[in-house]
Parts: sequence; structure tokens; C-alpha cells
Amino acid sequence: MDAGSDDRMIIGFDGDDTLWHNENVLWSAEQKFHDVLLHYLPAEELSHRLYETEMRNLSLFGYGAKGFVLSMIETAIDVTDGRIAVADIQKLVGFLKDIVAHPLHLIGEAARVVETLSQSNRLILISKGELFHQENKIASSGLAKFFSGIEIVSEKDQGVYQRILTRHTIRPDNFVMVGNSLRSDIDPVLKLGAHAIHIPYEITWRHEHLSPIEGEAPRYFLRETIAEVPQTVSAIEGLPRTGD
Amino acid sequence: MDAGSDDRMIIGFDGDDTLWHNENVLWSAEQKFHDVLLHYLPAEELSHRLYETEMRNLSLFGYGAKGFVLSMIETAIDVTDGRIAVADIQKLVGFLKDIVAHPLHLIGEAARVVETLSQSNRLILISKGELFHQENKIASSGLAKFFSGIEIVSEKDQGVYQRILTRHTIRPDNFVMVGNSLRSDIDPVLKLGAHAIHIPYEITWRHEHLSPIEGEAPRYFLRETIAEVPQTVSAIEGLPRTGD
Repeated sequence: MDAGSDDRMIIGFDGDDTLWHNENVLWSAEQKFHDVLLHYLPAEELSHRLYETEMRNLSLFGYGAKGFVLSMIETAIDVTDGRIAVADIQKLVGFLKDIVAHPLHLIGEAARVVETLSQSNRLILISKGELFHQENKIASSGLAKFFSGIEIVSEKDQGVYQRILTRHTIRPDNFVMVGNSLRSDIDPVLKLGAHAIHIPYEITWRHEHLSPIEGEAPRYFLRETIAEVPQTVSAIEGLPRTGD
Repeated sequence: MDAGSDDRMIIGFDGDDTLWHNENVLWSAEQKFHDVLLHYLPAEELSHRLYETEMRNLSLFGYGAKGFVLSMIETAIDVTDGRIAVADIQKLVGFLKDIVAHPLHLIGEAARVVETLSQSNRLILISKGELFHQENKIASSGLAKFFSGIEIVSEKDQGVYQRILTRHTIRPDNFVMVGNSLRSDIDPVLKLGAHAIHIPYEITWRHEHLSPIEGEAPRYFLRETIAEVPQTVSAIEGLPRTGD
């Protein structure tokens, strides 16, 4: 089958940990959080308590750096029974400023891949998190001009992807999502009948963990780097599709 | 001139302090912040220092309740030279939870007005703040179904309104924005050539202050309550317009 322009896949790209590094910045803040509190609890226990606080606060704060550090402050007070020094709390607020002011670094060949694909396919950036922080990261990335749509969402579940596809009048079998998170980028789009290219990041936040998908799952493509995306998209465009 | 369906104005509504109460919830948190710190500084000075911190942090945190309370924590440590009790910092984190969990209260006849107008006009909700918190408020308001578009933005300036009008293919002279803030709802849309209905809220955050607009400014309508919006929109629809 020859892939004419109407057969071109519309490609959704995740931002954090797919196009640019993010989790390593949060990971590094968490290491500094450990350093502050190591004489109270071992690192592993601190991570565990912080994660519990984050999960408890998720329905109040949503995702994002501010909620992460507010949960750090709460955990720090909690695990020290209020004995933490005020100067240490001030350090935690400083970690937040380090995170949001951290210079953005694109991952591998993200820039080249996005620019090249934008010449042949419609691209949509679908990122999850805090509006203000995501907008800043997108602006810093210099990639905004290659996307015909930019969607910043507070959650990435099946309903959210369905609304995005509807708003952009995209058929699921004509859509492929590229992302690092099984939970947020891969699983919900596969359930909608779309394709997914999964590129794991070096670190996965515990919350985004999901049992690995079998290599043989239909419409699921596991790749090591973003450089492999153009070839994978071409392969998908060559597959027989509904309506053919 | 008879206002046929094509002559109907498209109406933008602000959310916070236009459709539902917001500033009073933040105001009340700030009073509690004063209570915590009154033995260090008088209330007026505390408000001043908090506002300075907020403005300094705006380019890092953006608008919203989490940034507000993070600035509270920073100010509290600052004005007490680190002598604030950890238990008091814990209280400040608690204020944030009170804010985000606060039940939403619609203002006056907001529900009736929005429902009625939605039967004759296209309505767009344009709210500024944190995505997650704004989405929760919009859901709680029960008003989402009356809007043909919902735009949550991190800033409300001329460029942002221009992009919204372009995306929805709305001519400025066919658009009227209803809101409480001169800075965010009124001034930028007037500059674009659109109409604006200004309904001041009982409290205005200092940052949103702007010199009052003269009663005679073209396309500017100052009203006391949201109940006056339908009649004002009808009056605007009866005005001669570009293209007539």
C-alpha cells in the first residue's frame, strides 16, 4: 500500500521524559531531600513516605513540581515529628525553585525527529502537568512550531485522549502516540484502538509503573530511542488498516 | 437592526470572582496567615511582604493557590528570620488544603444567566490559573455543559485572547468578555476591539488593580451584578457594527 497524504499517521508526542528530560530533575531533588533528612530515616523509607504523601495529595494538588515539593514539606514535618529545622524547610522550597528554573534538555535526537516528521505528518504535543510549568518547558524546547496542536492536560486517561482525538477529528487507527509512560501514554491509547510507540525513560516514577505490555500486543511498538520513531511510523503506515 | 442568529455576540465568561467566589477564599486564608504571624509583624506589613514574595515568584510559579501558599511559607520564614515554629508552617500547608478543598459557591444569578444565555448565544469560559484546580472548580460549578468552549490559560493578555478568538474563528466586534478584573478580563479585550462587561467583585487582588476605565470608553460596560449581563448583551447586539 502506498501511504498517500491521507494515509499519514497523526503523531502524538508526550513531552516530559519523551522529548525532554524531567524525571531526572525530580529524582535529583529527591536525593537532596534524602540528604536533608538522612539522620531521621534511611533513604528508602523517606522515598516511601514521600510517595505516600504524594498519592494522598494527588486529588488535592494534581501532578506537578509544586505539589511534589509541598508533599516534601509535609513529609519532612511528619517524619521528624516537627523537629526538622526551619532552615531545612527553606531548603525544600529552594528545591522547587531549582526544579522550575532548571534549564530544559532535549532527549537524544528529539529535535531532529520532530522537525523531520513535521514535514510529512501532523504532530500534536500532549503533555501532562501544571499549565504554567509545561508552557515554559514547551517554549524552552523550541519545538512548538512543529506541532499543529498543543494539549496540556491534568490527567492522561482514555477519556482525555478520546476528547483530544474528537476535537482534532482524528480516527484512532490513524493516530500513534509516542511516550515513555505505559500508564499515561501507551495503555489508554491502545485501549482506544490507536497505535503506541513506547520509549522507556531511564527512570520511571513509581506512579507511572504498569505491568509491561507483551511484545506481541497489537499496535504496540517498544523502541529504545526516539531516533527509531520515523521508521516505526512508516512501518505503521504500511500496515493494512480499517477502511482499507 | 434585528439581531439574527449571525448577529449574536459570542460571550466569554471569566470564572474566578465572576461566576464563582474565589478571592474571598484566598482572603480568608491570608487572614489566617496574619493570625499565625501577628506577634512578629502587623497585618498590613505582612500583606505587603507576602505580596512582594508572590510577585517575585510569579515568573517561577505562575498564578494559583499552590504558588500562593508556597509564597506564604517563604514569607513566614523570612519575616521571622527562621524563628517561626514548624507547627505553624504545617498550618500554612493546611491552609492550601482548605483552599483547594473549599466548596465552590456560584455568585448571585450566575447559573440562571449562563443557562439562559446559552440558549441564544455561544458561550466560552476563559479562566486563568492552575489547570487541575480550575478543572475541579469548573466541574463543581455544574456550568460546563452550557459552554461550547472552555479555555484554561496561565495568563490573560492580549496575545492569549487573540489566539482564543482565532482558534474559535470569532471576529473581535462579535465578542464580548464578562469579568471582574480590569487587568485580565477587560483591558486586553478592549484593546483587541472586542466588547467588555465589567462586574467588579467585592475584593480585588492588588495584582489585578488597574486605573478605572472612564464610563464613556467605547465598548466598555460597567455593571453591578451578573444579572444585568443578558440585557447588556442585547443592547450591544443592537449597536451598529463593523460590516453593517
